[in-house]
This record gives sequence, structure tokens and C-alpha cells, in this order.
Amino acid sequence: MEKEPSELPGAQGVTISEQLQRGDLMSAGCPSREVLRHVTSQWGVLVLIVLEGGTHRFSQLRRAIGGVSERMLAQTLQWLEADGLVSRTAYKVVPPHVEYTLTPLGCEAAEKVRVLADWIQTSLPMIVQARDKARAAV
Amino acid sequence: MEKEPSELPGAQGVTISEQLQRGDLMSAGCPSREVLRHVTSQWGVLVLIVLEGGTHRFSQLRRAIGGVSERMLAQTLQWLEADGLVSRTAYKVVPPHVEYTLTPLGCEAAEKVRVLADWIQTSLPMIVQARDKARAAV
Repeated sequence: MEKEPSELPGAQGVTISEQLQRGDLMSAGCPSREVLRHVTSQWGVLVLIVLEGGTHRFSQLRRAIGGVSERMLAQTLQWLEADGLVSRTAYKVVPPHVEYTLTPLGCEAAEKVRVLADWIQTSLPMIVQARDKARAAV
Repeated sequence: MEKEPSELPGAQGVTISEQLQRGDLMSAGCPSREVLRHVTSQWGVLVLIVLEGGTHRFSQLRRAIGGVSERMLAQTLQWLEADGLVSRTAYKVVPPHVEYTLTPLGCEAAEKVRVLADWIQTSLPMIVQARDKARAAV
């Protein structure tokens, strides 16, 4: 992604989003690569899908996603929050708790990710067959 | 993912894919998790997208995908081949060369992955804005 050259004198009132062109994932230096890593990380995918079902507390997310460690879940939520996909609300009650919700941008990401995840789940039998075949051919 | 119980006596001629139910990505032990890691790895995503445009040689793939190392590209192609998403053809010519193509299953995966990648590229300006906002709020 490159910033548009601000060559035009007096091009005022241009928002940041207007200054930025769309990302280019094939380019090593494009910041879209980092977003791709966050959104498609194993835990990123699963967090987005669970949050598509509604607001969750940290402990609920951890229970919903088999095998995720507290550390990796916290790191994944921080990434998604920093990318503007997840919003975090801390309630100062006793005992204190924190809730996570998808932002509108996060809802869009979750929808795409879910279609891919659904495909993987549905196609798993065919993929397992392909693996068995590949193994048998060795 | 669980195998269907083979409780019915005489349930012969049942193919492997009929025995396997759909995967469950939320379950830590399900083999769909491994497929998810392959398909959504940074290089997995980019390889699938490039191969959606047609057959490529190894060197062409490497040129198309900025920043990928020879080792990581070879590893990613092996994963996708083992999952039945990419097929590899070695030509015994001088100089020898190897071509990679999507299988029909790989075409399906690539389509879902591309929709997600397109969304990331298109949404990048908004994500960058969200990040700047998050940073400013710290």
C-alpha cells in the first residue's frame, strides 16, 4: 500500500482513508500483510467466529475455543482490538469483568472467515481422503 | 470430528468420506485445525490466490509472492499438496522443472480465501485508521 502523492497544492480536507489506496498482499512491505496474519491466525479465525455469535467474556471465549491458552487468547484479542475488529469493554464491578464484541468492521471480517471455516469443516472428509491417498502413494 | 459409529451390521461399501462427519474447528483434537493452519497460513493464503490465476512454476510463484523464502514456499506447497489442494507435476526435461496447479478442491479453497484477502486489501485504509485511533488513545 502506498500513500497517494500529495502533489496537488491545496488538496485540503482529504481524510486519511482517502489518502490510502487499497492494500497489496503480494507486496512484502504492505501493512495488509500484518492484518492477514492477525485475521487468519488459528486463534484469530476462531475468535472472530465465536464473537459473530454475540458478546463474550474472556472466560467464555476460552471455554468455547478448545485448546487455546490464556496467553494466546489475550494476544489475539489485543491484535484484533488494535486492528479495530474487536471492541473491549471493562466493567468496574465486583468481581470485575471484561467483554469483547465485534465492531462493524469485525463483523465483515468474521463473515468472510466463517465462510472459509465452514468450507474447511464441510470438506474435511475429502481432504482426509486426499491425505490418505497421498500417503499411500509414497 | 468423529467417525460415525459402525453399529449397523452389514453396513458394507461405506466409503471413508461417508464414515467421516464434518470437522469441528472448535475442538482442539479435530484434524480440521491442521487444515485451517495450512490454508490460512500467510504463505498458504498467497499461494492459493496466485495459483487461482493458473498453473505456475516454483520460480514464478516465488517472484509473485513478495518476501517468501524458498524454504517456506516449498514447505507451504508440500502442505497444500498433502491436503489435496495443489497438484505438483515434475517435467523430466532439460533443465527439469516443476509446475503447481490447484485441484478442484483447491479451487474451492482459493475462492473463499480470495474473498477474505480482497476484503483485507479493500478495508486496509479503515483498519489503519482504527490503529491510529487506538494508538492515539493510549
